[in-house]
Formats: sequence, structure tokens, C-alpha cells
Amino acid sequence: MAEAGLSISDEPRGSVREADNPRQSLLARFGPDQPLPLDCGVDLSPFQIAYKIYGTLNPARSNAVLLCHALTGDQHVASEHPVTGKLGWWETMVGPGKPIDTNRYFIICPNVVGACMGSSGPSSTNAKTGKPWGLDFPVITIRDMVRAQAMLLDHLGIGSLFAVAGGSMGGMQVLQWAASYPDRVFAVLPIAAATRHSAQNIAFHEVGRQAVMADPEWRGGRYLLEGTNPRRGLAVARMGAHITYLSDAALHRKFGRRFQDRSNPTFSFDADFEVESYLRHQGISFVERFDANSYLYLTRAMDYFDLAADYDGVLANAFKGTTARFCVISFTSDWLFPTSDSRAIVHALNASSARVSFAEIVTDKGHDAFLLDEPELLAIVRGFLGSAGKARGLDEAR
Amino acid sequence: MAEAGLSISDEPRGSVREADNPRQSLLARFGPDQPLPLDCGVDLSPFQIAYKIYGTLNPARSNAVLLCHALTGDQHVASEHPVTGKLGWWETMVGPGKPIDTNRYFIICPNVVGACMGSSGPSSTNAKTGKPWGLDFPVITIRDMVRAQAMLLDHLGIGSLFAVAGGSMGGMQVLQWAASYPDRVFAVLPIAAATRHSAQNIAFHEVGRQAVMADPEWRGGRYLLEGTNPRRGLAVARMGAHITYLSDAALHRKFGRRFQDRSNPTFSFDADFEVESYLRHQGISFVERFDANSYLYLTRAMDYFDLAADYDGVLANAFKGTTARFCVISFTSDWLFPTSDSRAIVHALNASSARVSFAEIVTDKGHDAFLLDEPELLAIVRGFLGSAGKARGLDEAR
Repeated sequence: MAEAGLSISDEPRGSVREADNPRQSLLARFGPDQPLPLDCGVDLSPFQIAYKIYGTLNPARSNAVLLCHALTGDQHVASEHPVTGKLGWWETMVGPGKPIDTNRYFIICPNVVGACMGSSGPSSTNAKTGKPWGLDFPVITIRDMVRAQAMLLDHLGIGSLFAVAGGSMGGMQVLQWAASYPDRVFAVLPIAAATRHSAQNIAFHEVGRQAVMADPEWRGGRYLLEGTNPRRGLAVARMGAHITYLSDAALHRKFGRRFQDRSNPTFSFDADFEVESYLRHQGISFVERFDANSYLYLTRAMDYFDLAADYDGVLANAFKGTTARFCVISFTSDWLFPTSDSRAIVHALNASSARVSFAEIVTDKGHDAFLLDEPELLAIVRGFLGSAGKARGLDEAR
Repeated sequence: MAEAGLSISDEPRGSVREADNPRQSLLARFGPDQPLPLDCGVDLSPFQIAYKIYGTLNPARSNAVLLCHALTGDQHVASEHPVTGKLGWWETMVGPGKPIDTNRYFIICPNVVGACMGSSGPSSTNAKTGKPWGLDFPVITIRDMVRAQAMLLDHLGIGSLFAVAGGSMGGMQVLQWAASYPDRVFAVLPIAAATRHSAQNIAFHEVGRQAVMADPEWRGGRYLLEGTNPRRGLAVARMGAHITYLSDAALHRKFGRRFQDRSNPTFSFDADFEVESYLRHQGISFVERFDANSYLYLTRAMDYFDLAADYDGVLANAFKGTTARFCVISFTSDWLFPTSDSRAIVHALNASSARVSFAEIVTDKGHDAFLLDEPELLAIVRGFLGSAGKARGLDEAR
């Protein structure tokens, strides 16, 4: 019956090595003179941001595109991941000649604060103690992530962005950018996003956090100090979350009720169905590259996100006076960030008299569609950025 | 930060005491001469079925109603639960003058095989070893549960049922009854049911099982022998499952993004949102009354359920020649067993020329609506049974 549970390697995770000294990344260090003021009231200092760049900044510095990653994404958007060796998470979208064209735009993709791939987070070393932060790392918000990104842009000498784009938690950052720094964004692309997390989404996140915290190897968050690792809890959290990234229809199309490598049930708790094996694989491979405490911090940041709340409950006020042009995209089968969430963004933008186009893409691929080779998505992003680029005079600026 | 995780009592669960000697229940014991032949090929023997009865069997023995419980239900359908002290799980539906009227019908509600409230299951004592079965208990199916129920009826001298009713996993048993014993059922009431579990539902169940098995206290299923208890894993499983029993709309209506006992976020991993507290409570209270291995066995039985597969893939053949009358009920906001599943049942019944009525009830309460005080549900069940009772001549039979 040993096969019934998850077989997870006891090897140290690759990501542990990334927290302070990220490979294949650039690093911006902010010393005591440049603290990051957080929503929780703490000034985080020192801190660092790991990031990747692709393409070339034009002399006018007008072609910079900021890409914001999702909950379990990172800065390795269009190049090999140093831990997994896999392709970047948005290779369909970003690269030479691709919709977010590295021949045309200067792409910056930072790891968010709180994550585990080189930006300061719970698995980073706390300079004051010389030990991993663990749960002593302050709880961060989407606004804090965006504030840190703005400091990174200052550090790079980039006053204003041609575009900011991202899906899911990345889309939350994109919306926060439009609200916090309306003068620094020209084109805004929130994909499969929402201005606040629903009760059901908070509930799913809470189950994931409890799965991590129920693992005795979590040790109250001190697992790096104590040489343990809540792999099983994190794998279970990932398995549950992964279901929400897909759709019933996609799971049915991909797996249905097919048995794994056999034609009859085993009458056991092995992975009988293909969908079980697939999920187990998702859980097991995730823990090799991700930090359990970062999972707690980033899910929490998403739960706390409520853009309207910062503007007296009136979402339109978040976008008051914006001159940016927006392209809002949702997917028909996305039940985590359903089209109604995107429509709420569009309505608020309309109420603010903002320039906005909206596309709901018909697909059965669920929330994860934003990461996949979805031709309509690619065409829309290419078209929107192309037209915004003309308005920005990017061709002349080269 | 201790509050961040689940605070679960270390007291022994009440349900442990129920497995062999269920309180407030009747018990049918089947000796070596009456084995239960299981789909996995094993003859289970000896075994026992715990059950409750309400009302009086009429002299013609024609007013018996079998109620089939759901995954985490039990035989305590309309009377106090011996472990929790709470009301029965279907008190809105079952009782004197209620839609399933104990003044009129003789109600039998057995605990299913594989469960933990007195029918043989993994927490029962294996007569051959004198120790709890654990994972040595054979894997059971919905058809096995129904076979055991038929043996219970034989034992009680009840040849045919006036009605068989149940929701969710109970509805699966109801459908299996109609297929396996067409001559023994007069009226058939599957509520929020399906003839097979979808890939998404298998996936959610698998996450729950992995949460249990990831708990080191699970001990490969031998926790009763080793004096441990995978409470945390089971609580996490329950929390995740509970989300699927509700709907996004119901969670929004009940909790929204309201904070628990405060007006601002704590910037911690405490249960900040009301929905988090609610879910934690669901997890914690569940482990007091339920056995972790039973959770594995019953979710597995649901995953394996595929009624058409037993009839060459043609669902209509499952109901061929049935003379029973059916009432199929679904709920608009049930995304676990959506209306499309109920429609598939209706179509198959139509193809078999069966008598069938179908109601889709508009509610935001999700899958759990079948357990709740849903006036339209109560009225439909009352009406259907009343009319079937007339056809059966129940009034004359008294």
C-alpha cells in the first residue's frame, strides 16, 4: 500500500539555493537607505529583487514592458528555469517575433516580494539574524509587490512603462499598477484577473495553507532552520489548487474516467485513474521548485487583494483620471477568475471613461488558458500591443 | 503563530466506539453462512449492518422506504446523533407529517458497508485477527453497499420497497438499486446524483485521500493499532470537500470578504476571514465523528461508480424493463453533481420507456441543498411519494 501515498524525494529542493543567490537572474539590492514600506506597517530593509530582462531598452526608454507573474510563477518567463530546466512559463507569448516581441520591447520580469526565486521572502536570509526569515518575514500584499517593482524600475532608470501585463495574481499586480502609478503605465493588460478574491477562492487558498501547516515538517514555519521540509503538505496544497486552474470539461477531455496503465480497477488506493496520476505528478514536481512558506505568503496576498476597498469601495475611483489604454481578457471556462470578474473591471474602467477593450475567449482550458498556446489570446495581445505601440510612437523611437 | 494551524483536540474520537457496537442503532449480523460477495472478488464474512428504523411496517409490508446516506452521512437520519448529539441529517425531510412521513411509511436507514458507524468497515474489528481491519478491509463499491442493503431487507423480511431515496452518494445507491433490483423498488428518488463520477470529482477525492495519507499519523492505515489518528489530514480533506458542497454564490452570500471579529486584516496566517473560520470549524468537527480510512473507502467507491459500464456502456440498459416510477431532482448551483448529470439519468430512463419526472430546483445553495430546508425540494418529494403511495394502494393497505 506504500504506492497509495505520494512518493516524494527527500533530496533538498533546488529552490532553496535560489532564495539568496538566484541563478540566471539579475539582482537589485536595496540597502538600509531604501526600505520597502509595506502595508502591514513594517519597513522591509534590506531587501532584494531578482529579475530577468529580455530585449533592448530603446534610447527613448519608451519600450519597457513589465511582466507580472502568477502565484507559482517567477522571473523565468522566456528562458530555461534554473531549477527545473524547463522552458519559461510564457514562451508562447514572449520571445523574438512573438506577441510580446523581444525584438521590439524591453521586457522586465521580476520575482515578486515574498516569493522564493531570489526576491526577498520567507526563505531568504534575514540580515539581522543571519537565518532564514520563516514566518518572521512580514506579511505582504499585492500593493507591496507593485511598490517593490516601482523601486526596481527607478533603480533601472525607467520612468514609465510602455506596458504592464500578467495573468491571475499577475493580473492583480497589473491592476494595482494602473491604480497606484497611473502616470507610469501606457498600456495595461490584466488577463484572467479580478480586483478582489472571492470567498470561494479564499476558501480554496485556506485549504492549501492548512495542508501545508498540517504537515509536522512545517514546524511552525521554521523548517529551513530545523532541516525539515513540509513537502507532503505542499504537494497536497498544489494538487487541490491545480484542479481549480483547469475546468471540468478539460479534465474530462484529457482524462475522463480512463484507468492508468490498466483496463480494470485495482480495488486499492493506488492511482487507478489517469487523472489521479496526473495530479500526483503536479504535486510532487511542484515541491521541487517552490517554498512552502512562500506559498502561504503569496496566497495570503491574493486573499487580501481588494482594490476597491482602498478607494472607499468604489472601484471606478481606482482608475480615476487614468490615461492608459486597457485590454481586459477572460476565458469562458475559467471558474476561478470568471468572466464576471473581468466584466467588473471593464465596468469600472468605463465609469472612469478609460480606454478599454475586452475579450472573452472561448476555451475549455479553464484559468490556466492564459499560460497556454491559445491562438486567440496570442492574437489579441499582439494586436493590442501593436496598436498601443503605434500610439506610443515606438517605431519612430527606435 | 500557533493559531494559524488547526487546533484539533487529542481526545479519542467518539466514532471509534461506534464501529463494532453502535449506539442507538439496530444491528444485523451476518455469519459465515451469509457472506457478502464483493465486486473485488472477496466474500466478506462475517459482517454486520447497523441501521435505524422509524415508523411502522404495515401488515401488507408494502410501505417500506429505504434511505441511502451520503459520503459522510450515516443511519441517524431523523434522530439524535450518538457522537455529536446533533439532530439527524435529514430531519427537514423525515419525521411525523414530514415529506417522508414516519406516520405513513416504514423508514429503514442503514449505515453503508465501509463506513464507521456500526456497519463493517476499516475501523471494525476483523474477526479473524481480533484487530481493526485498517487497509486489510476489502475495497468496496456502490454495488456492494446495495447488495448488503438487499441482504438487510431479506433479513427484515421485506421483499419489496415502496421507495428508495437519497442524495449524492445516496443517490448513486438509489440508481444502483433500480438497476440491480428492478423488481424490489416501486418509487425511486435520486437527488443531486450521477451515474458516474466525473474526472474533476475523482480529482477532488484524490486530493482528500492524499491529505489523509500525507498525515504521518495515518501510519499506512494502521493508526487504530498504533494509537495515532490522522486528524489533521482528515480535517484538511474535509475542508477541501466542503467547498465543493457549496457554491460560489452561497459562500459570497454567507461570508463574502468579511473579516472574523475584526475590521482590518491581521497581516498574519490566523483565520482573518469568516469563511476561513467556518471551514476550519468544518474540518475540526468532522474528525470527531468520522474515521479517516472510511473516508478513503467511501470516496473510492464513489470514484469507481459507473453504472453504464456494467451495461456495455449503454446507460439505458441499466434501467431496461423497469416498472418503477422515478423522480430525479437536481439543483441549479450544484457544480459537483450538476443538472447535466441528472439530465443524463432522465434521458436514459426515457430511452428505457420508464416513468420519470424531473425537477431542477433553483437555489444558490449548491450540492448541499439536498440536506437543507429547501421548500421546493420538500414539496416535490411529498408530492411524488403521495402520488406513488396512491398507485401502490398504501391507504388501502393500512
